Amino acid sequence: MKASFYEGNKTFKVEEKQKVAPAKGEVRIKVAYCGVCGSDVHVYHGNMDTRVAKHSTIGHEMSGIIDAIGEGVTEYKVGDKVTVRPLDNRLEEPSDKGFSHICKKMKFIGLDSEGAMQQYWNVPTFVLHKLPVDIDLKLAALTEPLAVACHDVRRSGLKANETAVVLGGGPIGMLVAMVARTTGAKVIISELNEARIKMARDLGFEVVNTKEEDLLTYVTKATAGALADVVFEVAGVQPTISIMTEIAGLRGRIVGVAIHAVPRSVDLKMFFWRELSFIGARVYEYEDFEKAIALVGKKALPLETLISGVRPLDEIQSLFEKIVAQPDGMKFLIDCQG
Amino acid sequence: MKASFYEGNKTFKVEEKQKVAPAKGEVRIKVAYCGVCGSDVHVYHGNMDTRVAKHSTIGHEMSGIIDAIGEGVTEYKVGDKVTVRPLDNRLEEPSDKGFSHICKKMKFIGLDSEGAMQQYWNVPTFVLHKLPVDIDLKLAALTEPLAVACHDVRRSGLKANETAVVLGGGPIGMLVAMVARTTGAKVIISELNEARIKMARDLGFEVVNTKEEDLLTYVTKATAGALADVVFEVAGVQPTISIMTEIAGLRGRIVGVAIHAVPRSVDLKMFFWRELSFIGARVYEYEDFEKAIALVGKKALPLETLISGVRPLDEIQSLFEKIVAQPDGMKFLIDCQG
Repeated sequence: MKASFYEGNKTFKVEEKQKVAPAKGEVRIKVAYCGVCGSDVHVYHGNMDTRVAKHSTIGHEMSGIIDAIGEGVTEYKVGDKVTVRPLDNRLEEPSDKGFSHICKKMKFIGLDSEGAMQQYWNVPTFVLHKLPVDIDLKLAALTEPLAVACHDVRRSGLKANETAVVLGGGPIGMLVAMVARTTGAKVIISELNEARIKMARDLGFEVVNTKEEDLLTYVTKATAGALADVVFEVAGVQPTISIMTEIAGLRGRIVGVAIHAVPRSVDLKMFFWRELSFIGARVYEYEDFEKAIALVGKKALPLETLISGVRPLDEIQSLFEKIVAQPDGMKFLIDCQG
Repeated sequence: MKASFYEGNKTFKVEEKQKVAPAKGEVRIKVAYCGVCGSDVHVYHGNMDTRVAKHSTIGHEMSGIIDAIGEGVTEYKVGDKVTVRPLDNRLEEPSDKGFSHICKKMKFIGLDSEGAMQQYWNVPTFVLHKLPVDIDLKLAALTEPLAVACHDVRRSGLKANETAVVLGGGPIGMLVAMVARTTGAKVIISELNEARIKMARDLGFEVVNTKEEDLLTYVTKATAGALADVVFEVAGVQPTISIMTEIAGLRGRIVGVAIHAVPRSVDLKMFFWRELSFIGARVYEYEDFEKAIALVGKKALPLETLISGVRPLDEIQSLFEKIVAQPDGMKFLIDCQG
């Protein structure tokens, strides 16, 4: 079998490796597709070298088919289509209060341990989710980022006839907008990048190009002065932190999706004055994965549009180079079946 | 009758004034006591001169007895003990989405319109809450700030056996701590001022003197690593904004009680990592007032301790001077019955 390895210094190698029989309580998956996450690009840039060891196989947005079953595994069989919720919470403690998905010693599979950018991948069964038999495995590789979006929308409590503004129309922002729209809410995307603006408009979204239009003016008019019920802060920059409190209406809920490496200047007076909430959201829980799988399975969302390209595992190095060179791209998949 | 008037330049005057018959839909209250709120002290300092006109009567933390009834008033009678929820929401609009208590054109009675620091006060009935016949009118003057605390605690969702940390043990912080304790939660107060620390300890609270002890270390130990379920940010300064994200555990709820005149530096990464929420809380709703009245009525809280002094209306000027000179004080009342 072939596997890719991150070697540091912006370098991936693809090498032959021995297939391993699944251990007790594990399955071996023949990986179909593995998406490239923003965090994988961070690994490529060396930003996570203290966390990701050299000669590691990364990757966690995947789909595949079970190829072998370890001892004691009864709920899965060879041939099952599956995806992986890449959260290893085996070190959960009582002080985590049951919040398994963000428990303090949680290991993120595909960063803290071996990932899916290889032909075969052994994982414990507790991370598996079964996929419908007729699912498109390419789209199923989007389950993980879609589960992030499902979690974000669930944390927001967004309801039909409310107005949500998504600040940032990258891959996660677009998925959040798609899931938000399924609630029956009105969804407005704020974005600067021309290619992403076009894509969002082609998908039928109201998009504000903040280079040309004032977002607060737009949202005020669109909501007859009530402003947004929900704001998703996906862009992760100071300007979106500054505008989020302006565009949120009375009791507005702002979901913090982005990761902010540095402290931000936040207008807390607006939180007081309008009784706003800021709600942090990280990864997903079991039900978010099941929701995402259901949305992929019934083709409820225009997910194909988000797939900017598919490349064979052998071309992983040139794929990462392309992603870095072409920031307009949305989601790239690695085809691990070759 | 006598009334006090704010004349600008840190000056109150007490003057004779004609009693007015209550208009249609209004009652006249013979004011018993009126507490001095932090916002009243802001008025005294001239910080609210753009909002509060010269020769205004301020004051909104009051108790009293109905003295006369206007046309059409049937639900109240002369002799009823009452307090006032000082929110005039008559300009509420559909875009306020039903959040009357924070509606965009809400007028705060006692700042934006005539207040209670006088012997008789005419108000519309929709701001009234009946008090139990046997209530202590001195304690009943604390209903309004206590309703703030009830609102803050309700917004937090605090439950029995959770741990709450109150950052700042001033009058509102102490009331928040008292109400929080009624839920069955463990309550820890963080404070710097020696007099307030002593008072809080005398009231049976766990208090961390942050001049002497590291709050994060304390909370970590007190919760066996789980950290706080709820944090009330009452102090309104950068150091409490910086510590609030440190001491809140997984899915911790931080209630923003204080008003921050300037933007603050906030560690948003912690909101992501621990899925924290920051929940703005402002004034109160009807049910918070009813809750506060019930707590005063059944003497459920050691409210007497918070009353630092009672002065007759004639001494309003020296009372404000004393409050400014003696920042250790908690709650001062004006006796309007003299």
